[in-house]
Amino acid sequence: MSFKRIAVIGLGLLGGSIGLAIADHLPEAVTTGYDSDPATRARATERGLVGRVCETAAEAVRDAELVILCVPVGAMGAAAAEIAGALPAGALVSDVGSSKQSVAKALAEALPGHAIIPAHPVAGTERSGPDAGFASLFQQRWCIVTPSDDANPLLLTRLVQFWEVLGANVEIMDAQHHDRVLAVTSHLPHLIAYTIVGTASDLEEVTRGEVIKYSAGGFRDFTRIAASDPTMWRDVFLSNKDAVLEMLQRFSEDLTALQRAIRVGDGDELFEQFTRTRAIRRSIIEEGQDDARPDFGRSDHTG
Amino acid sequence: MSFKRIAVIGLGLLGGSIGLAIADHLPEAVTTGYDSDPATRARATERGLVGRVCETAAEAVRDAELVILCVPVGAMGAAAAEIAGALPAGALVSDVGSSKQSVAKALAEALPGHAIIPAHPVAGTERSGPDAGFASLFQQRWCIVTPSDDANPLLLTRLVQFWEVLGANVEIMDAQHHDRVLAVTSHLPHLIAYTIVGTASDLEEVTRGEVIKYSAGGFRDFTRIAASDPTMWRDVFLSNKDAVLEMLQRFSEDLTALQRAIRVGDGDELFEQFTRTRAIRRSIIEEGQDDARPDFGRSDHTG
Repeated sequence: MSFKRIAVIGLGLLGGSIGLAIADHLPEAVTTGYDSDPATRARATERGLVGRVCETAAEAVRDAELVILCVPVGAMGAAAAEIAGALPAGALVSDVGSSKQSVAKALAEALPGHAIIPAHPVAGTERSGPDAGFASLFQQRWCIVTPSDDANPLLLTRLVQFWEVLGANVEIMDAQHHDRVLAVTSHLPHLIAYTIVGTASDLEEVTRGEVIKYSAGGFRDFTRIAASDPTMWRDVFLSNKDAVLEMLQRFSEDLTALQRAIRVGDGDELFEQFTRTRAIRRSIIEEGQDDARPDFGRSDHTG
Repeated sequence: MSFKRIAVIGLGLLGGSIGLAIADHLPEAVTTGYDSDPATRARATERGLVGRVCETAAEAVRDAELVILCVPVGAMGAAAAEIAGALPAGALVSDVGSSKQSVAKALAEALPGHAIIPAHPVAGTERSGPDAGFASLFQQRWCIVTPSDDANPLLLTRLVQFWEVLGANVEIMDAQHHDRVLAVTSHLPHLIAYTIVGTASDLEEVTRGEVIKYSAGGFRDFTRIAASDPTMWRDVFLSNKDAVLEMLQRFSEDLTALQRAIRVGDGDELFEQFTRTRAIRRSIIEEGQDDARPDFGRSDHTG
């Protein structure tokens, strides 16, 4: 059932991790790869991210059964256009983009008549580039697959199995619903983290040195997220605009309510809000989606 | 120079960690402790957080040279009033509260004629209670000491040395400036984290189960902070209201600007904002204020 010839287009954190995970879990598969940046191609060859790094995207996909596009979501259409002429008729094209409706549309336009099933492994770190990837990135993480209604069931099953073999748990979801879920669990958190790090950088009365020095009070957690790849995130916000703006509106309303509680000194309201948020943390840890150690295990501790 | 008899009032994360750190670094010091919660006192005795857990705050401070109040900032005045009658004339009273102007005022009112030098070790985890403390909590963290203009210089020097012996780097700062710096590096991040976790809990179209499942996309980082002690944080926001509201206003302006950039599709503006925030992360890691490993070291990785 599993794909024997797999092409990875884009060899950064996600593409590199996929290549390495295939080498670990599907050693019999032949992998090819391409990245538009020559330096990334060179480094990908050195690290052995895929079996063979090609000089063009077309060359990489020429014999592929499965092509996975691992470029920023705003570049998906162009990447698909680049491979269109060389793509074998029976190949399945998938991707790893963080927004799914816009990617589905871009791929369908660039690859008419080809089999396309978009996917999104919800996994990553703040690093990017060909040195960032590692084989275990997808272990115990969710991969959301968003087939259109007319997707080929056999190819869908094979794609699901592919991600399961790489260590992920797979969920099938409607692309529109995916974009709303991710708007709140991923896109809004990143937007807020980028914002607060920017706000802290621009203060006149508190120096940047002070912000850095005293960041252990909470701020440093946000800087990790705000160190993520700018191109990737620019594209995410532009491509999932409606859902992000809607979640942002709700967040702003909630923030205004807490702001008011602080202004009028309503301690009961603050206490109630701060209490109910603990339960979610507990559930995330129980379901294995985060490290249970206090402070992410950053400190030595007895707990 | 160092204090020989030290009383710790409040035996949660901070108080417990201070007791354990004293045992490690000042083994000759005699420590007493008190907590208003009998269950916490019992557990503190079991864990040996201090040498002797007392049944009243007054008993704990009776022979102390240094008293450290480790209760929520809203309870500082009441805790100080409890010890007022038993406090030796020459003892120094300090604290660990996250806001400093309001604490200085509350302590001065409750303890007229006594030596008071407020302090704030910028260290902690999301855990609270008598099981949360550990001896190395203050290692390589900053402790901000905020003496009034008429503070006794010898006691100030001894307090600074005390924190240095416990592993902290000490900075002397005006209380008002402290409250502005911490508003941005700690209080605002916590408020935002509490808000977004609340927002995500209240959505109708995205279930709580989905929020938990796909939290690895960024959201889970916020849930850690939003699991912090609700009483402590209620008090922080009420006691540092002006600085928090000011920082919140700036944050909201910046968020509105990014919201507009998304709405009008201004990718250049988004890219520019997302790029400049990376530098701060680098500085925080260079200065040893956070773990350099990707994803806080949560994943196995090659980087």
